[in-house]
Amino acid sequence: MIYLDNAASSFKKPKCVIEMVDYALKFLTANPGRGSHIAADSVATIVYSTREEIKKFLNAPNYDVIFTLNCTQALNLAIFSMLKAGDHVITTSYEHNAVLRAIYSIKGLEITILDCDMQNIVKNLKTNLKPNTKMIITNHISNVTGEECDIAAVGAFCKEHNLIYLVDGAQSVGHTQIDLTKSNVDMLAFAGHKGLYAITGVGGLVVKKGINLKPLVFGGTGTNSESVIQPTDIPEGLESGTLPSIPIVSLYAGVKFVSKNFSYIQKKEQNLSNYLYKKLKNLNFLEIYSKSNSKNVFSFNIKNCSDRLVADELNQRKGICVRSGLHCAPLVHKKLNTCGAVRVSLDFFNTPEEIDALISTLNEIANS
Amino acid sequence: MIYLDNAASSFKKPKCVIEMVDYALKFLTANPGRGSHIAADSVATIVYSTREEIKKFLNAPNYDVIFTLNCTQALNLAIFSMLKAGDHVITTSYEHNAVLRAIYSIKGLEITILDCDMQNIVKNLKTNLKPNTKMIITNHISNVTGEECDIAAVGAFCKEHNLIYLVDGAQSVGHTQIDLTKSNVDMLAFAGHKGLYAITGVGGLVVKKGINLKPLVFGGTGTNSESVIQPTDIPEGLESGTLPSIPIVSLYAGVKFVSKNFSYIQKKEQNLSNYLYKKLKNLNFLEIYSKSNSKNVFSFNIKNCSDRLVADELNQRKGICVRSGLHCAPLVHKKLNTCGAVRVSLDFFNTPEEIDALISTLNEIANS
Repeated sequence: MIYLDNAASSFKKPKCVIEMVDYALKFLTANPGRGSHIAADSVATIVYSTREEIKKFLNAPNYDVIFTLNCTQALNLAIFSMLKAGDHVITTSYEHNAVLRAIYSIKGLEITILDCDMQNIVKNLKTNLKPNTKMIITNHISNVTGEECDIAAVGAFCKEHNLIYLVDGAQSVGHTQIDLTKSNVDMLAFAGHKGLYAITGVGGLVVKKGINLKPLVFGGTGTNSESVIQPTDIPEGLESGTLPSIPIVSLYAGVKFVSKNFSYIQKKEQNLSNYLYKKLKNLNFLEIYSKSNSKNVFSFNIKNCSDRLVADELNQRKGICVRSGLHCAPLVHKKLNTCGAVRVSLDFFNTPEEIDALISTLNEIANS
Repeated sequence: MIYLDNAASSFKKPKCVIEMVDYALKFLTANPGRGSHIAADSVATIVYSTREEIKKFLNAPNYDVIFTLNCTQALNLAIFSMLKAGDHVITTSYEHNAVLRAIYSIKGLEITILDCDMQNIVKNLKTNLKPNTKMIITNHISNVTGEECDIAAVGAFCKEHNLIYLVDGAQSVGHTQIDLTKSNVDMLAFAGHKGLYAITGVGGLVVKKGINLKPLVFGGTGTNSESVIQPTDIPEGLESGTLPSIPIVSLYAGVKFVSKNFSYIQKKEQNLSNYLYKKLKNLNFLEIYSKSNSKNVFSFNIKNCSDRLVADELNQRKGICVRSGLHCAPLVHKKLNTCGAVRVSLDFFNTPEEIDALISTLNEIANS
């Protein structure tokens, strides 16, 4: 099997993550923050350290980390905390349904979708600003084209105009350098199981201190237990119920792995991306939607051939795992004028040989 | 270490769960339902089987299983789907803040809290029924006293009066026999990591087919991706974003373990409960809040001694892990007239010797 669907979930986990989970299954299964005994304390300590490691990795000393089930819940937490009827939000056609479906569910919210290219976002923000504009939401790296948004430029614009800036980091965290403080990002949502190599079951929202969030879920927080009114403690008041402590523990190992090896990871992924793009460009039977500077994520179609068929053939012929369809991002496909595309997404554990196998199988399919 | 805090989370995991997670870390890390390749399909198959195993275990062929982060999110999903301003809900003082804080967050909702004992619930439901009563919510087994609610009696009452019945099964699923169909339960919320021995990161709502739920979270569902409007598919429309697939896979092994050994588990836990209660009863320095028929969960105080001090002493003297405080269930403590209690909670992996160690350490503390 050749796994090229890392934008959906990383497949291969670093040894330290596997070992950490193995250890956790034996010694870290108690409920953190729900008791003061040794078993609960051991987990609570690692949960705390995971928040700190994430803050360090993203240069976010003045932020809090709120753990959620996945990146989608983190985006929803940010969106439903900030936006209500009468507000105006500006976002882009690159967004995932985790953003789009959330904002379209808010009755009376005014929505502007920028249909421009990633590099022209700031110019377009300017012309679409309204007196009731409250928030800007952008993808950091597109989960369809791999194009990167200049979040520092958008962040500066938001700071200048006193707007809240939310970044969807599902495809960027762990893959590209992020400095939340310098970039003036107010909130960043991330997935644990993608570029940070944790197991599924945890995502998070990194939020600038001082921003008030409203809970999506109400329940036990381990704080103010005498009150039937949800407390406002951060992060507890936003993390009702038992934390996904084992996924968090795996995330601890994952973040440590990534931050320790980050320059090597970036360099290797950049080389793989360049290699893949160059090889794809040589196939004249392809229509390619990604750019030469796309990061890790590349989409294309074989001309006159359905994306689904190509993905199925890759899977059946050589066990090559890629995604077809709309990748939960319908508006960018509309912009690209496709009804679906084949998406190849890389991570640190891929190899040039796997890319060679992909290319030769694409040749086979096109010629069959 | 002696772990007696299983109501917060089971600590020891069955060998099959540990082995399953170990396997999953190597082969089941793809994203289920987000691709049609071999890696995604392998996980999707187990996720599907987990739903089926849960339905079988609870005799719920005419129900759906919706996976959430934890039991709290499952309860919130049920509550926010059903209740709005103007409705009336009846619940009990035994409830956890996962229920209480959720219902108290709904502005304009009329709330009746029954302060009666578990065995008198039905009689009290009758006298509190109103024309706008929509839903009854009860704990199945109290996380403070271990008392069991006769859910079949409440279910029959709800059926007769056309009310929605939601059961909080956090402390019962995996510990006591449940027949959802026979008991006329409309919705049951459960935690994966307690009586079902999964790792943290997954809970669920088992919901009767035909009941319409509203999503708490909006996003990618792997269905109708072309639409920016949340789809209504069940379960997908209620499970936005990446599923906690590794926790679910561990739940698969956990449910299989429990259902295969269920009569033995029940018998062993009953014997342990009886043994513990008898031993506690012999300690005349205790005030006990649980009953002779309490299941697995027993709360008490050493007279004139703070619950926190006793829990800390148990931890420090012999590494005995128990919970002090309010256990996120403030109203039952008010009813019991306590400001906190020491809670001992058992599961299948506990032993009489551990109970003996607890009892002798309690004696030591009381006499010191």
